[in-house]
Amino acid sequence: MSGQDHAKGDGNSAYGRKSFQRSQSHFADRITADGRDGWPVAAHRYRLVVSRACPWASRAVISRRLLGLEAAVSMAVADPVQDDRSWRFTLEPDGRDPVLGIRFLSEAYDRRETGYPGGVSVPAVVDVPSGRLVTNDYQRITLDLATEWTALHREGAPDLYPEPLRDEIDEVMAGIYADVNNGVYRAGFATGQETYEAACSDVFRRLELLASRLAGQRYLVGDTITEADIRLFTTLVRFDAVYHGHFKCNRWKLTENPVLWAYARDLFQTPGFGDTVDFDHIKRHYYQVHTGINPTGIVPLGPDLRGWLTPHHRQELGGRPFGEGTPPGPVRPGEEVPAAGRP
Amino acid sequence: MSGQDHAKGDGNSAYGRKSFQRSQSHFADRITADGRDGWPVAAHRYRLVVSRACPWASRAVISRRLLGLEAAVSMAVADPVQDDRSWRFTLEPDGRDPVLGIRFLSEAYDRRETGYPGGVSVPAVVDVPSGRLVTNDYQRITLDLATEWTALHREGAPDLYPEPLRDEIDEVMAGIYADVNNGVYRAGFATGQETYEAACSDVFRRLELLASRLAGQRYLVGDTITEADIRLFTTLVRFDAVYHGHFKCNRWKLTENPVLWAYARDLFQTPGFGDTVDFDHIKRHYYQVHTGINPTGIVPLGPDLRGWLTPHHRQELGGRPFGEGTPPGPVRPGEEVPAAGRP
Repeated sequence: MSGQDHAKGDGNSAYGRKSFQRSQSHFADRITADGRDGWPVAAHRYRLVVSRACPWASRAVISRRLLGLEAAVSMAVADPVQDDRSWRFTLEPDGRDPVLGIRFLSEAYDRRETGYPGGVSVPAVVDVPSGRLVTNDYQRITLDLATEWTALHREGAPDLYPEPLRDEIDEVMAGIYADVNNGVYRAGFATGQETYEAACSDVFRRLELLASRLAGQRYLVGDTITEADIRLFTTLVRFDAVYHGHFKCNRWKLTENPVLWAYARDLFQTPGFGDTVDFDHIKRHYYQVHTGINPTGIVPLGPDLRGWLTPHHRQELGGRPFGEGTPPGPVRPGEEVPAAGRP
Repeated sequence: MSGQDHAKGDGNSAYGRKSFQRSQSHFADRITADGRDGWPVAAHRYRLVVSRACPWASRAVISRRLLGLEAAVSMAVADPVQDDRSWRFTLEPDGRDPVLGIRFLSEAYDRRETGYPGGVSVPAVVDVPSGRLVTNDYQRITLDLATEWTALHREGAPDLYPEPLRDEIDEVMAGIYADVNNGVYRAGFATGQETYEAACSDVFRRLELLASRLAGQRYLVGDTITEADIRLFTTLVRFDAVYHGHFKCNRWKLTENPVLWAYARDLFQTPGFGDTVDFDHIKRHYYQVHTGINPTGIVPLGPDLRGWLTPHHRQELGGRPFGEGTPPGPVRPGEEVPAAGRP
């Protein structure tokens, strides 16, 4: 996760504050085509470190798939349950990331800045040769994948951040960030009734607005999938499984909002979205890590997730999911989500 | 609440155990027509102490309404939020029950048995002249209201425990008790994953069975409302508001099960059921008292409760809600649930 919310792996570092504040990313170097920050776009040089539990990291997992960057940028998947040393590679047989050779993501942070006092967050991009963290800027990483990495995109890759629509995409994403992506955290990590109620109301007010927008159009901006859809999706796909109960965003379930539920299913069933989602990682992360709001660490059996694969009929609204492009191919071998994480 | 689950008002006394065990009622004297336990049925002698939050107490609130015992048996409503002295009469202007003159229900327990070490629970029936607790036997109180208090029933009172159907009613209620009424508590108070999963599975397996039973018949046993319906209703009416999130019984919401949702709405809209339900008391009790599972004490804004008043169409199944009898009249003045507690 980004920022300080699970910084030390205890999930509770936000608790001392009256109102949850997501911290800015500390390492904001950019990997660009011209390499102006010292990090030029290059194949096989960078490793994307993610947790499939984390909505902020999942943006990058989806973008990498849609853009066909899997071969150029390898990916490390952290254990969804952090310990007090934060994100760790305990899903690997020997507990070490096979490419970076490290046991904890914090080691890449340490190589970048000794004694960095801030949180260790995903998504993180690590420079493989030096083992140093390049960026953990969750708001920028995917935009750069879409716009700076074009030379390495697959044939038929969509334009996820089309130039003529950027103002509108930015505006839509700003509302989604404040009230939805981060709104659910503000609700869930609130320590007072008023703070919670304000945040929860923000979440549902924004979702209602987005549902109105999506009632007559297939995607948020234009008629193709953009970065805005990716960012809304990563929260929606976690909504009933986690945010509804664990974060008390419970005015209604996603499945009770016909427009948003169909929209979310449409994206889920689009190659590059649902095939990146691991509900097992998602549920275990939130329910086991945030002992401040779920002291027992018990992970609920529900909800029934089979509905994600039911027909959505959104194609009747038209839209061209990948614009002039094409859907991505199958998931790279070794990166498939296990059956346990599927609906 | 009955038994030890919130015995001392901290809501956490069940936590020391691996598997939640509901304790037996300690004071099991019966108030009978023949007065064989020393407590004869009599008008204006006994006071029923309840919390509208508590499903076990709510059985008695509903039975008293359906049977028209409001004038004969007065009722004290405790604050839904206990403190460390358990149930208290802090809803009264001076913090004392106006009939019993006590501030805490525990005072009536103390008058019955000095130094009683067990929990203070509702429903409780108190002998007004002596101020002593008569019974807190939540499994027996309503059956006796139905069968021993007949001389004081209103004209047109239904037979809630008809003799020829008692074996079937008892069998149905045994399953409802184990898997539903108490099942949600076993799930919610579980301290381990396996215990939780077993309980949660029991809840939904039993609810599916009950839904099958109710798909073609309006009420659980026979064609009239019986004690079995009252006992299922008191859990169903709390299901989405509390048990779904707070107790992690989240395979589906009640609103997602067409049969049970229509059945519950049918009863809710029947005089004597919904007019006793205070959603505000229900939500505040569970979320504020059980700090062991909700450390912040924050009460969720959801779910949207307006659906409770929508048409249910269950009358198409036939059935005679009150048998040869009639519905109860309006709620007694002073006992109305405030608008804040209504959907």
